[in-house]
Amino acid sequence: MEGKEEDVRLGANKFTERQPIGTSAQTDKDYKEPPPAPLFEPGELSSWSFYRAGIAEFIATFLFLYITVLTVMGVVKSPTKCGTVGIQGIAWAFGGMIFALVYCTAGISGGHINPAVTFGLLLARKLSLTRALFYMVMQCLGAICGAGVVKGFMGKNRFTTLGGGANTVAHGYTKGSGLGAEIVGTFVLVYTVFSATDAKRSARDSHVPILAPLPIGFAVFLVHLATIPITGTGINPARSLGAAIIYNKDHAWDDHWIFWVGPFIGAALAAVYHQIVIRAIPFKSRS
Amino acid sequence: MEGKEEDVRLGANKFTERQPIGTSAQTDKDYKEPPPAPLFEPGELSSWSFYRAGIAEFIATFLFLYITVLTVMGVVKSPTKCGTVGIQGIAWAFGGMIFALVYCTAGISGGHINPAVTFGLLLARKLSLTRALFYMVMQCLGAICGAGVVKGFMGKNRFTTLGGGANTVAHGYTKGSGLGAEIVGTFVLVYTVFSATDAKRSARDSHVPILAPLPIGFAVFLVHLATIPITGTGINPARSLGAAIIYNKDHAWDDHWIFWVGPFIGAALAAVYHQIVIRAIPFKSRS
Amino acid sequence: MEGKEEDVRLGANKFTERQPIGTSAQTDKDYKEPPPAPLFEPGELSSWSFYRAGIAEFIATFLFLYITVLTVMGVVKSPTKCGTVGIQGIAWAFGGMIFALVYCTAGISGGHINPAVTFGLLLARKLSLTRALFYMVMQCLGAICGAGVVKGFMGKNRFTTLGGGANTVAHGYTKGSGLGAEIVGTFVLVYTVFSATDAKRSARDSHVPILAPLPIGFAVFLVHLATIPITGTGINPARSLGAAIIYNKDHAWDDHWIFWVGPFIGAALAAVYHQIVIRAIPFKSRS
Amino acid sequence: MEGKEEDVRLGANKFTERQPIGTSAQTDKDYKEPPPAPLFEPGELSSWSFYRAGIAEFIATFLFLYITVLTVMGVVKSPTKCGTVGIQGIAWAFGGMIFALVYCTAGISGGHINPAVTFGLLLARKLSLTRALFYMVMQCLGAICGAGVVKGFMGKNRFTTLGGGANTVAHGYTKGSGLGAEIVGTFVLVYTVFSATDAKRSARDSHVPILAPLPIGFAVFLVHLATIPITGTGINPARSLGAAIIYNKDHAWDDHWIFWVGPFIGAALAAVYHQIVIRAIPFKSRS
Repeated sequence: MEGKEEDVRLGANKFTERQPIGTSAQTDKDYKEPPPAPLFEPGELSSWSFYRAGIAEFIATFLFLYITVLTVMGVVKSPTKCGTVGIQGIAWAFGGMIFALVYCTAGISGGHINPAVTFGLLLARKLSLTRALFYMVMQCLGAICGAGVVKGFMGKNRFTTLGGGANTVAHGYTKGSGLGAEIVGTFVLVYTVFSATDAKRSARDSHVPILAPLPIGFAVFLVHLATIPITGTGINPARSLGAAIIYNKDHAWDDHWIFWVGPFIGAALAAVYHQIVIRAIPFKSRS
Repeated sequence: MEGKEEDVRLGANKFTERQPIGTSAQTDKDYKEPPPAPLFEPGELSSWSFYRAGIAEFIATFLFLYITVLTVMGVVKSPTKCGTVGIQGIAWAFGGMIFALVYCTAGISGGHINPAVTFGLLLARKLSLTRALFYMVMQCLGAICGAGVVKGFMGKNRFTTLGGGANTVAHGYTKGSGLGAEIVGTFVLVYTVFSATDAKRSARDSHVPILAPLPIGFAVFLVHLATIPITGTGINPARSLGAAIIYNKDHAWDDHWIFWVGPFIGAALAAVYHQIVIRAIPFKSRS
Repeated sequence: MEGKEEDVRLGANKFTERQPIGTSAQTDKDYKEPPPAPLFEPGELSSWSFYRAGIAEFIATFLFLYITVLTVMGVVKSPTKCGTVGIQGIAWAFGGMIFALVYCTAGISGGHINPAVTFGLLLARKLSLTRALFYMVMQCLGAICGAGVVKGFMGKNRFTTLGGGANTVAHGYTKGSGLGAEIVGTFVLVYTVFSATDAKRSARDSHVPILAPLPIGFAVFLVHLATIPITGTGINPARSLGAAIIYNKDHAWDDHWIFWVGPFIGAALAAVYHQIVIRAIPFKSRS
Repeated sequence: MEGKEEDVRLGANKFTERQPIGTSAQTDKDYKEPPPAPLFEPGELSSWSFYRAGIAEFIATFLFLYITVLTVMGVVKSPTKCGTVGIQGIAWAFGGMIFALVYCTAGISGGHINPAVTFGLLLARKLSLTRALFYMVMQCLGAICGAGVVKGFMGKNRFTTLGGGANTVAHGYTKGSGLGAEIVGTFVLVYTVFSATDAKRSARDSHVPILAPLPIGFAVFLVHLATIPITGTGINPARSLGAAIIYNKDHAWDDHWIFWVGPFIGAALAAVYHQIVIRAIPFKSRS
């Protein structure tokens, strides 16, 4: 079957390879797929940039949990939601923080701030296993500290009464629905991340590399709009773990597996969809 | 009459062709109007990129209906809207998803996610009839699956009681008003799509190719702000069909024609306005 | 006094002219101030682009009033604002439409959609008097038609009962406060327009030409957040006139002068501030 | 330890210095760290651009306080928040104004509009001490005038009854929590400013220089979402001082030190984090 390298632009018809389009961006090999990252890269552990990236992930996840859990506390402690920023404001806090933090840390660590994103990029061989595990540990530590600071500000009793921003499956939904919501939600996020970091598209579509942090943040915002009533929305195991450890009540721990299994399945599906269906990378010979 | 090729920029006075402006972007033929797509392009059906584009439209419309109908369900199931993301949150879900999905799929399929957009671009000869029909079928199938998953999560009874996100003309409005609202609303969307994909403007205005997915998403958001009280806002026949099939109640089917006829008329008017009034394409000899 | 051409960037210290900065964008004459537009340009009236620009202003102002007045009607007809997009949703409708419409029409007419913007740009000699008057007439006609269509959809009685989206000074505020609010509000908008279209800054700051329509839309959104409780927010005489003519009640006409005098004073102050204080254009010899 | 100059991109693995990446942006010295600003620059005081920058800071902070305090007044004077733009609307007013004003004034004064931002950039030696003090004075004067105009519009009694938009620590929170909230909140803002103005990242990540004003505005919006219930959110000593002087009640003055000490500590921490941890500037020999 011919034409695997063909592409279409926003709203346009397909460009056949046979007809020259006139811009260098439309030639077959105008972009360079970076080579897959090795599972273990020995030099990495002796590089300052490796540890700096881990620190950046820690600080970013710390700020993410701090702002978002504080916003959640502000909404739930008010008897009437009208006098607060509302559930929509919570969704903005999550999505907006991801936008700002991806913008700030993309050039330092890649701007993951989420073990599910790290897992999806690991499956696509965008970073080494060593780096992926290091990032996940730093993200979880940052999340625990961020939620802890909020508990310090609110006081222990009030924090626990208000639910501590922990993720659980809401009454009226089965655990299966909660798991499904986490899978599809994480798929939306990780698919957007893959689209924003695609080497081929960055070379051809001018909006891809410029706007990148914005649709990633919006993806998080949109999933929160849809699934806050179901699970409170995890789609980020570090966020769920940090809130659960600081909250530390049985009913949060009972559902906790959903917020690891769901995001990891969703991220894996997004990696498969982007790498195999969209990019057909396994079927290509590398030049 | 002279000066058909003249252009003005943001806030500026017109550029007369006689005075050289000094940037190459201001010469008469600095952009290349792509040739009109043939109605039937034989090679297309044997190209992998054709089917990949259809899969991308399916997945995008699936995710669009999943997130938006789930958001609608979350709002309508609550007795007080203050404890939800609110009607404004619904508008953000629709507009935000279009922003994120156009960003993600523009380089794969053109990022239509809407049969009315496909129809408008077909009238402007931006894609072949074969491709247009294939896209529309995939969009409708994706929409049905997306709404179906939400029904699975909510349970059949609750989903039906809450209206299933289906489009109908609200009490207090005539069917004529509903049809008019769909026509003008789709005009706003498809006019924005034409502005974002205009070959001439992309060559001259630096903000056009970069921001493209953002105003398209905003157009959807804005039309929802205005017409949710009238029809719930369709402006996307696949979205209306998907919700109607999964909801499957008579009163949704009674008004269903409005959500095909209105968007197609609106898209046709936008194509006429952009191609004939703004670009004057029929009056130009192609070089 | 030396250094009139010096500039500083986002967050940075000043660039002294004596030290070469190394990028061509930092030299003294890296940009070209376009010559002032003549008051009357004879060739303009026989140019198709002149009439096309007028049509674009008509359609844009039509769509602006249609979407915004419909959104206002949807909010005010509900007894509880929680079940609507809310006052904040109204502000989004005004600001978002300006964003989308400036994006769509900037390359055709300059994207004014507002007689106060046209007036400010006229004072700065960015367009001819002929063109300014033609734009203002087309904007007012578009606004009347847009509000008229909403009246048609809502029915005459309901439209009038709900206030028709007309601007008046609210109880508890003096006419002086209302006038002041219109002056400062229009200053914010027109100052943003001048910043976005500044030839010098476009040459130096990469974000200026790309983002341009976004901060202009945000300026409109922000002024609405602040002054909807005072005057309903005009800052656009065409919007106020269109709503007043279709609503046509004495109390709207009594305050109507405020929504012409205020915006024109605000636009003039913004033109003076940008052209004289920031750009010091009268003190420069043109090269 | 090797590799201090290594960098990673959005979602990508690290680039080892040994393997050439092929784009000039990946070489070691592709960017030029500007030299540190002197503490006193004698030529500055005789330069028109110095005074013009001060005027721009004055006008920007004036408009910032005017729009935001007016929005706060509109929300608090309504008995039910549903009929207003809501607390979320207040957060949008603060964040959106910073976005629009940074966009408008970045090329004139650097777009600080906040003594804490000026202080952070002073610590990083991005501007002279003379300029920093001049900016802070102009910011405070602008803030006082902006809040004063709102008091003029509202009337003295109503303004005072409604709290005048002044910052205080809310009931239920300790002064320590308030101080902590100001420190972390300002850290988020000033860290975003440093990321947006980083010379190295601007040279490598295409989204950094283009989007810059947007994430800075979002940072302000997000901190307001989280900490309005605690302190009303200062993170800007000029904003807190302007509101306090015009409001002028004891309980606002009692907490006032928090809104200077907190933001200055937060800004200093952000400067330390960015300059030392991320950029390792003290450990580099300047070429």
